[in-house]
Amino acid sequence: MEGSSSQVSNGHPYIPHDLHLPGYVPCALPMSNILSVYGFSSLIVVCLTWIFSGRLPKITKVDRLLMCWWVFTGLTHMIVEGYFVFAPEFFKDKTGFYLAEVWKEYSKGDSRYVGRDAGVVAVEGITALLEGPASLLAVYAIATRKSYSFILQFAISLGQLYGTAVYYITAILQGDNFSTSSFYYYAYYIGANFSWIIIPSIIAMRCWRNICAVCGVQPQGGQTKKSKVR
Amino acid sequence: MEGSSSQVSNGHPYIPHDLHLPGYVPCALPMSNILSVYGFSSLIVVCLTWIFSGRLPKITKVDRLLMCWWVFTGLTHMIVEGYFVFAPEFFKDKTGFYLAEVWKEYSKGDSRYVGRDAGVVAVEGITALLEGPASLLAVYAIATRKSYSFILQFAISLGQLYGTAVYYITAILQGDNFSTSSFYYYAYYIGANFSWIIIPSIIAMRCWRNICAVCGVQPQGGQTKKSKVR
Repeated sequence: MEGSSSQVSNGHPYIPHDLHLPGYVPCALPMSNILSVYGFSSLIVVCLTWIFSGRLPKITKVDRLLMCWWVFTGLTHMIVEGYFVFAPEFFKDKTGFYLAEVWKEYSKGDSRYVGRDAGVVAVEGITALLEGPASLLAVYAIATRKSYSFILQFAISLGQLYGTAVYYITAILQGDNFSTSSFYYYAYYIGANFSWIIIPSIIAMRCWRNICAVCGVQPQGGQTKKSKVR
Repeated sequence: MEGSSSQVSNGHPYIPHDLHLPGYVPCALPMSNILSVYGFSSLIVVCLTWIFSGRLPKITKVDRLLMCWWVFTGLTHMIVEGYFVFAPEFFKDKTGFYLAEVWKEYSKGDSRYVGRDAGVVAVEGITALLEGPASLLAVYAIATRKSYSFILQFAISLGQLYGTAVYYITAILQGDNFSTSSFYYYAYYIGANFSWIIIPSIIAMRCWRNICAVCGVQPQGGQTKKSKVR
């Protein structure tokens, strides 16, 4: 399907056609290559996390799954989105560098990436610099049963949901017309972000429920003998 | 100081001068009037909340102060920011309607409001529609000592901080040049938003600390006999 309805104008395939991208160098890697590298490396990371987390004493399967998610999303935020934040001219890359190719390809689903939209860069900056490292901290917090495990996972999930909300609302306000074709619209713009709506929602609800359950069995909404509410 | 360095071009006082605002009607109310109405009505609301919260049994002064904050910020989000979200043509208002005057005046500190910047509208939309009602729910949660009191206050504060971060980062990425003068820059753009950085930070840290304290005294990071971690 790739390229079936994409048009090259102004030297690039992105919508709007009049987007000014001097020095644009087309994708060197085919879509299948880009997606399979991301998919395969993610699979390795998730499998390794699953295997190593199994060695932890008394860990539940849910916590092991959560660790897999936080490793996957943390590395995606830090490496893939981190590169985007600090490489404003990725579209000029001639070397076929993988991360530049990722964003050249993804921009077919949302040209605000290649066009350096302020809202997109702001959200990606917060995601890469704060939520990325915080996600890896969540892995450590789950593994070592830290008291901040739930509230940290809740905070990151809420940040991911807020970022996704800003991402879609700004697109709608700007006319929602940044995709090269409807294939890229649904595959990249909708499909690739779908996990970051569903999974953070589930995790945020789980953390909310568990924190409420703990606070609920304490007198005065969380006060304990050991820990006075300040 | 008002208007000392403001210039009227293209029929309006905002920066950039070439901002296209057909049908713009200048502010009818003076700055002192706009600020004193907001200040006075906020003071009444805060005083009433303080008085009525004093009737609640065994309530701490900190919780009473928090209730005052949540009433104030909740009503600001819902009424003032809510009006902005649903009145894209406030700058054409001829009637001297107070809320239109507020945004005509505030836009001197940040013309992205009158210019309907997508990032600003997205953040204000989330703030007005989600964080506003949630703030009033926080008042109820504190008053009735709900188990979700801390996590709700934490969630709203984090949302406020995320929104403020997006607000400033997008401004910087767009050149940070939307103020009519340095007076409006520091008084409105910086000064008026300052409370929404400091207070949510303090509340978020307090909630984090208290939730951790409660989770920390439970076995397995929050598990209790009554409430199994799911």
